Amino acid sequence: MKLIRVNMTDQSITSEDTPDQYQMLGGRGLTSILINSEVPATCDALGPENKLVFAPGYLTGTPLINTSRLSVGAKSPLTGGIKESNVGGTAAYALARLGITALVIEGQAPSDQYYALAIDADGSVELIDAGDLKGMRTYALVEKLTAARDEECSITCIGPAGDMQLSSASVQTTDLDGRPCRAAGRGGLGAVMGSKGLKALIVSRKGKTPDPLAEPDAFKTCSRNYAKAVKADEFSGEILPELGTACLVEAINGAGAFPTRNAREGQFDGVEKISGETMASLIKARGGKTTHKGCAQCIIDCSNEFVDPQGRYVTSSLEYETIWSMGGMIGNDDLDSIAKLDFLCDDIGLDTMNTGVAVAVAMDAGYKPFGDGAAAIEMVEEVAKGTPLGKIIGSGPDAVGRHFGHDRVPTVKGQSIAAYDPRGIQGMAVTYATSPMGADHTAGWVVDQNLEDFGGTINPLGAEGQVEASRDTQIHMAAVDTVGICDFAQSGLAAEGGMENVFKMVSAKSGRPFAEADWTDLGLRVLKAERAFNRKAGFTNEADRLPAMFYKEPLPPHNAVVMVSNEEMDTTFDF
Amino acid sequence: MKLIRVNMTDQSITSEDTPDQYQMLGGRGLTSILINSEVPATCDALGPENKLVFAPGYLTGTPLINTSRLSVGAKSPLTGGIKESNVGGTAAYALARLGITALVIEGQAPSDQYYALAIDADGSVELIDAGDLKGMRTYALVEKLTAARDEECSITCIGPAGDMQLSSASVQTTDLDGRPCRAAGRGGLGAVMGSKGLKALIVSRKGKTPDPLAEPDAFKTCSRNYAKAVKADEFSGEILPELGTACLVEAINGAGAFPTRNAREGQFDGVEKISGETMASLIKARGGKTTHKGCAQCIIDCSNEFVDPQGRYVTSSLEYETIWSMGGMIGNDDLDSIAKLDFLCDDIGLDTMNTGVAVAVAMDAGYKPFGDGAAAIEMVEEVAKGTPLGKIIGSGPDAVGRHFGHDRVPTVKGQSIAAYDPRGIQGMAVTYATSPMGADHTAGWVVDQNLEDFGGTINPLGAEGQVEASRDTQIHMAAVDTVGICDFAQSGLAAEGGMENVFKMVSAKSGRPFAEADWTDLGLRVLKAERAFNRKAGFTNEADRLPAMFYKEPLPPHNAVVMVSNEEMDTTFDF
Repeated sequence: MKLIRVNMTDQSITSEDTPDQYQMLGGRGLTSILINSEVPATCDALGPENKLVFAPGYLTGTPLINTSRLSVGAKSPLTGGIKESNVGGTAAYALARLGITALVIEGQAPSDQYYALAIDADGSVELIDAGDLKGMRTYALVEKLTAARDEECSITCIGPAGDMQLSSASVQTTDLDGRPCRAAGRGGLGAVMGSKGLKALIVSRKGKTPDPLAEPDAFKTCSRNYAKAVKADEFSGEILPELGTACLVEAINGAGAFPTRNAREGQFDGVEKISGETMASLIKARGGKTTHKGCAQCIIDCSNEFVDPQGRYVTSSLEYETIWSMGGMIGNDDLDSIAKLDFLCDDIGLDTMNTGVAVAVAMDAGYKPFGDGAAAIEMVEEVAKGTPLGKIIGSGPDAVGRHFGHDRVPTVKGQSIAAYDPRGIQGMAVTYATSPMGADHTAGWVVDQNLEDFGGTINPLGAEGQVEASRDTQIHMAAVDTVGICDFAQSGLAAEGGMENVFKMVSAKSGRPFAEADWTDLGLRVLKAERAFNRKAGFTNEADRLPAMFYKEPLPPHNAVVMVSNEEMDTTFDF
Repeated sequence: MKLIRVNMTDQSITSEDTPDQYQMLGGRGLTSILINSEVPATCDALGPENKLVFAPGYLTGTPLINTSRLSVGAKSPLTGGIKESNVGGTAAYALARLGITALVIEGQAPSDQYYALAIDADGSVELIDAGDLKGMRTYALVEKLTAARDEECSITCIGPAGDMQLSSASVQTTDLDGRPCRAAGRGGLGAVMGSKGLKALIVSRKGKTPDPLAEPDAFKTCSRNYAKAVKADEFSGEILPELGTACLVEAINGAGAFPTRNAREGQFDGVEKISGETMASLIKARGGKTTHKGCAQCIIDCSNEFVDPQGRYVTSSLEYETIWSMGGMIGNDDLDSIAKLDFLCDDIGLDTMNTGVAVAVAMDAGYKPFGDGAAAIEMVEEVAKGTPLGKIIGSGPDAVGRHFGHDRVPTVKGQSIAAYDPRGIQGMAVTYATSPMGADHTAGWVVDQNLEDFGGTINPLGAEGQVEASRDTQIHMAAVDTVGICDFAQSGLAAEGGMENVFKMVSAKSGRPFAEADWTDLGLRVLKAERAFNRKAGFTNEADRLPAMFYKEPLPPHNAVVMVSNEEMDTTFDF
């Protein structure tokens, strides 16, 4: 249990026992509480006072399945507030197997220097010169770095967008096949990494010193039960392996909540061409892979490998949010261009959501026609070139809206919405508006509570019950993201006795009692730290608002506007 | 006394008696109190809910000299807060002579429509089609509009920058020679005008129905006394007519507070080439004009007409703030290129300060070398072309900083500082940080209280006394900008009995008692409305801060940093 601090200003590296205040934390809980405690809230997000924190979940590195979740945290250059972005792959597991609670990147390298950080199987940590790697795209970078290392490594890195410190820059990390296709996409944390002068983390996957478990036998029993529940569940055991997250395309579109053509409509006429079923058939017919394992310790295999008509690799994994942002949101029904755009975003190091929405705003402003996938590809390529327009696109929807003088910009706190229109699923309106993260779907995904097909009981077009649903889910998710369980493996929590099973594992790792009240307290503690940081940074309730378009423009086909009032929004965090 | 509302959405025009709540107000007091009362603070500054208000000062249109001051107010697209920008010329006098208290532009014209508003000598108000004028530069525009009118008019308009709704866009207005060289430069109000679909105001200068004076004889006596005091004062009676505001170049540079090369130094090595004395000699040698009258009712004549070596008109009036922003701030010691840049900004409709500082930030980031006047001209021309980089430059220093990933951006609330480094004259640090307007020198110019040569008694490099000086001056200036007295004619207020003389004029116009306490109450009322608006818009104390560079980088030659603490800043508005 050690916390490693890397000071980029003087390249000094220190290791300390994880301080008491950060004990029994991991993932988002650790990044957010550390940032709130150590980073001046009003600092320049791209300056030396900001800190970039990488933390595996509290349960990462244990025998529990689907826990290779890495939280990346910092003050965000996109939102101006606190940020945690969560990613799978192999990095979290690799760090946790080395007994590393968190990696804290501090200070700022001199402007003429650029580094990579290498952590070996013996736990030694070293900054190595990466001056010649600045500007490299991630696939070529990872190939080069991998070739230079003797042992199997997990690589976490930025592409040209991060090097240019653009606000949509992602942190990319390698999957089990060693491809940098997993993204901590949101909030421009790739720009923070670039501002530190850090191109890549190279972490040995051969670590053998994870934190000891206080009660290993009890833990194993619980973790086996958990895995059984995940396998037994229809969604995580059958649908996700078969279709991946793309299974949501038909479902959300059917509900009329699939934001189409910059959220002018809630259903996309080309939906059948980009549905999960269509994608899975196409991949299979071309000899690609569905039911693909992307992350360490995964037993769901919701990933895929999208290939071209000749069977050559295009991208992995093509996910629901990207099929939306580069598909319906820009009016594009061509899966091949969507897959290419997904690859380009991974390769250049860009959030697919913020970038797709930026393209959508540009199209809505008349710059290019909706549905022109080739134009979208050109726009994303322009980001990598660093032209003025490219940098505007790489800075996200707000920058694009300013540039074209266009006010239909679906963002909150500067971050784009995700693939659920807040007018069609009004619980998402509450989550987008109030999450300390800006518009974010994972912070409080209440789709299941809104849509009847998912077992929901709340009217998705009304305000009633939405604040409560979002509040409870936001608290729950803050805890989930802290222990480090994959969102798609939540079926293990939802199963009968599933929550108690997880409490027992936390207890079996720590040796301390842990029960339901502790879980809620944990979620509350994380959210309170995040809200406190944002308040110090100058945010008020006025920041917890959706843009006017969602209140004024009825969304076809249900022709609803957001019904949750500002007063109701402000009761979300009643703690 | 009438208030005219123009609804651009349906092109309806209504005239009403000035409502009670806006009585005895004018200028900034009227624009700010109206905006705080009628504009939703969280609205889109470029959307239909914002209102653009043009208001002459309360004393404008009376026999008092130097009162042709027009306040232009709105929510600012640059700062996100309330804005009043103040300009001379002939417009304010023309409106007041028609008995117009304020012109309120509401709603938003359909996107395919563009208008000009014409007000005739008989008071009739009409929207006329200006679809073919969109994109025109101001000099050509004014020439065309003037040629089409029968009688002498004052024209207030926007250039291409305003048409493109860029955040540095100014509102330009004609001087006594009919040139659009007077700018309500700050806060992007030209973009608001563009967003309304309004290219120009054309106001007859033949109005003969000013508000009646309750006691005309008493008023005349006082106004004569005022004029005498202005004439008798050395600064307004001799120095300003001789050198114009450029007299400050040597003084502020001598004090080590002339922000040079993006505020890396406080003294400019090329200062002698751009001083007021040098400029005046050059203008005279070439046959141009110093001691030039720019504004209606002016008796100071601080304006000038800068000409090229062949004696041809280049610009009017070349002022201190522009000599700084396009001179020292970008390391440029060539008066000819400074004059050309001044002209271009007027012609394209850009704030010279925000634009010069945007160029300075680009140069500081390495885009072009400091001192390259030709490169600066190219950058400003690019704004007019509407290229992506041009639009970035036209959006101001923050946009340029984001584009180049450069954090030395001397702005507060998004607006650039003016020609006084807050480290060299620390009272200006308080004004820049706390003014509801963003970094603004006119809101609380405490240079005279800081510099010994100006009779100052406060240590300009220390914190002591600065908050009090700025507070008192901000209150005073809110009142000055409400009655509409030119800043340079304040010698009439500073003279013995000068304040009482002005109180008597307010009383002689209104027929109601007005004394010192009323003056302070007026200033407080205006500032409170402005602060209230900004709070509703989501501003907290965290917005009242200077950028880190001013706290961290000692400024040569005195090597001072800003010493006023955040806690002290927060005591500025103790009312």
